[in-house]
Amino acid sequence: MARRKVTSIDVAREAGVSQSAVSRAFTPGASVAEGTREKVHQAAVRLGYRPNAIARSLITRRSHMIGMAVSYLDNHFYPELVQGISDHCQKRGYHILLFTAGEGDAANQELQRALDYQIDGLVLASVSLSSEIADRCHAAGIPVVMVNRVSDAPTASKVTGANEHGGRTIAHFLAKAGHTRIAYLAGLEETSTNRDRETGFMAGLAEAGASLHARAVGNYSAEQSARAATEMMQGSAPPDAIFCANDHMAIAVMDALREGLDLSVPEDVSIVGFDNVGPAQWPTYSITSFSQPVDAMIEATSETLFEAIEAAVEGEAFEAEAIELPGKLIVRRSSRIPPGTGDTWELPA
Amino acid sequence: MARRKVTSIDVAREAGVSQSAVSRAFTPGASVAEGTREKVHQAAVRLGYRPNAIARSLITRRSHMIGMAVSYLDNHFYPELVQGISDHCQKRGYHILLFTAGEGDAANQELQRALDYQIDGLVLASVSLSSEIADRCHAAGIPVVMVNRVSDAPTASKVTGANEHGGRTIAHFLAKAGHTRIAYLAGLEETSTNRDRETGFMAGLAEAGASLHARAVGNYSAEQSARAATEMMQGSAPPDAIFCANDHMAIAVMDALREGLDLSVPEDVSIVGFDNVGPAQWPTYSITSFSQPVDAMIEATSETLFEAIEAAVEGEAFEAEAIELPGKLIVRRSSRIPPGTGDTWELPA
Repeated sequence: MARRKVTSIDVAREAGVSQSAVSRAFTPGASVAEGTREKVHQAAVRLGYRPNAIARSLITRRSHMIGMAVSYLDNHFYPELVQGISDHCQKRGYHILLFTAGEGDAANQELQRALDYQIDGLVLASVSLSSEIADRCHAAGIPVVMVNRVSDAPTASKVTGANEHGGRTIAHFLAKAGHTRIAYLAGLEETSTNRDRETGFMAGLAEAGASLHARAVGNYSAEQSARAATEMMQGSAPPDAIFCANDHMAIAVMDALREGLDLSVPEDVSIVGFDNVGPAQWPTYSITSFSQPVDAMIEATSETLFEAIEAAVEGEAFEAEAIELPGKLIVRRSSRIPPGTGDTWELPA
Repeated sequence: MARRKVTSIDVAREAGVSQSAVSRAFTPGASVAEGTREKVHQAAVRLGYRPNAIARSLITRRSHMIGMAVSYLDNHFYPELVQGISDHCQKRGYHILLFTAGEGDAANQELQRALDYQIDGLVLASVSLSSEIADRCHAAGIPVVMVNRVSDAPTASKVTGANEHGGRTIAHFLAKAGHTRIAYLAGLEETSTNRDRETGFMAGLAEAGASLHARAVGNYSAEQSARAATEMMQGSAPPDAIFCANDHMAIAVMDALREGLDLSVPEDVSIVGFDNVGPAQWPTYSITSFSQPVDAMIEATSETLFEAIEAAVEGEAFEAEAIELPGKLIVRRSSRIPPGTGDTWELPA
C-alpha cells in the first residue's frame, strides 16, 4: 500500500517518449502518432498506470464530476433521488461528488467547498441555495439544478413536484370525505416544499368552506412529528384528520398514534402524507399520499443539468429552467375517503 | 451560465503577476512574496476565482476525494453508512465520490472508472472486490476498506459486524424459545454476509440439536423475499420461525405475511432479522434483530482509511486490517422468546 502512485513520467520513461506524448496519448482527440500511442499504452499496462482523469480535466476543462448536496438521507425520498441521479450521471461517464450537510448555513459552508473541486455541475437536493453560492456558481460557469427545493436565484434551474396543487387537492379531499377537524403538521417552515404545500392546503380549505382546526410543526423530523401528533391527539379537541407535509413524518405519526396511543387509522384519525415513495406504499402503512414522480424528477434533473453543461462548454447561453412535474393523490387505507373514490382522487374541474 | 470558468491565467493578468505566482499563492506552504499573495487574492476576489483543488492535487498528490461504492441504497443500512462516512470525511476536508452499482461485475466495471479519478482512498460498502481491482489499487497506492463485505484480497482492510456469531446466536435463541420448524431465508448467496450468517446459523442449530426445516432465497430483495416467505407459509408444513438474513428482507416478509396472508407475528410465525437499523426499530415492526453497530462501523472504516492514507502519503507500509465489531441480539415483539428474556439475549457461555 505504501508504493507511490505510478505517474505519466514513469510511463514516459518506460515507453521512451516525452511526458506530453503520454498525456496526448490519453487525451481523446489529441494528436499523437499511432506508434507512439501504442508504445504508451503498452507501457501503461506494464506499470499498472491509469490515465489521470484529473490531469486530463485540466486540458479538457471537464472533471466529469457533478457536485450533489443532500441535507439528509433518512427520508426514503433522498436515497432514491441520489441513486437515480448517480445512475444517470454514470451512464454519461460522470460521477457524483457527494456533500452531506444539514439545511441552511452548514449546507452552504459545504457548498463553498464543492466549488474548490472543478465540478462541471451542481445538484442541490433538499438544500436551499444562498444567493452568494448561486452567484459564485454563475461566475464560475457551473450550472446549478435544485431538486425538490426552489430559491429566488434566477441562475439556478428548479425541478419540483406539484407542491401547491397537491396541498390544495388534499384539503378538498379531506373536506369531501366529511372531516370537520382538519389539522396540518408542518415540515421545516423555511423550506419551499413546506411553504408551497401549506399555501395550497390553506387555499383548498378556504375553497371548501373549511377552516384549519389545529397546526403543529414536525420539522420533517420523525421524533418531533411523533411528539407533536401525540400532543395533538391528547388535547381536548383532537383532530379527525392530519395532513403531514411529507410521508417521512406521516409514518412516524402513524407509529406514534397506533402503537403509542392505541388509536386506529383512519377510524380515529385520517392521516395523509406527501411524496408517495418508500414505506408509504408498504402495506403496513398504506398511506394516502400526493405523489412526487421521483423517476420523472430524476430524469428532468439529469436532462436539465447536462443540457446546461453542454451549453457552458460550448460557451453558449443557457436559460435556467423551472420545471414542475405533475403528481396525483394516491388513495390508500390511512384515510377516510369520499364515497365512490377509486385508487386516485382529483380535484373536480 | 454560459460564461467560461475564471482561470489562474485571468487572475495572473488581473493581478499583473505570473501564472505560477498565482498557483503558488494558492498552494499551502509554497513560497511567494506577501505582497504578491495579497495582489493575487484581491484579483481572485474581484473575478470570483476559486483556488483549484484539482490543480493543487497535482502538486500535493492529494485529491481529497474518497471513492465510495455502494450496491444499493434502498436497504436503510446503506444510507446511514454513506451519510456517516461522508460526515467523517468532510470533517477532515475530504469528500465522497460516489459509485452506485449492483453487486458483481457491474460494480467492478464502475470501480475501474473510480481509479480514473485520483482518489486518495476507496470504500466499498456491500460491494465485493475483484482481485484485479484490489491489485490495481495496491499498485496505485490507493488504500481500500471494505465495510460489511469481505474478500480474499490481502491488501484490502475489512470492517464487519459479528455475522457468524450473530447467526449462531439466533439459532440457539429460536430453539430455546421452543420453535421446532425453523427456516432460513437467504440473502445474495455469493455475499460474505449471507455466507457467514448462514454458516453460524447452521452451526448453532446443530449445537442446539435442531435441524433446518426449510430454506429459501430472498437475495436481499424485498419483492423476492415477500414471494419466498409467502410460498413457505402456504406449503404443507409451514415453518414456525424464519430467520431472514437481513432486516430489509424481514420487513418485506412481515408485510407479506400480515397483510397478504393475514397471519400474526409472532403468534403464527416468529420473524428474526439482522442489522437492527432503520424500520426494524419502528413500533409497527419491532423486529428481533442481531445488531450491526453502524456508528462503530462508520468510525472504524474512517479511522482505518485515513491511517492508511497517511501511511501511503508518507511512503510508509500499512498493514491491511480485518476488524470485526461485536453486536448483540436485540429482543423485540416479532418473535416468541425464551422465558425470562430481557431486552437482549446472549449465548450462554
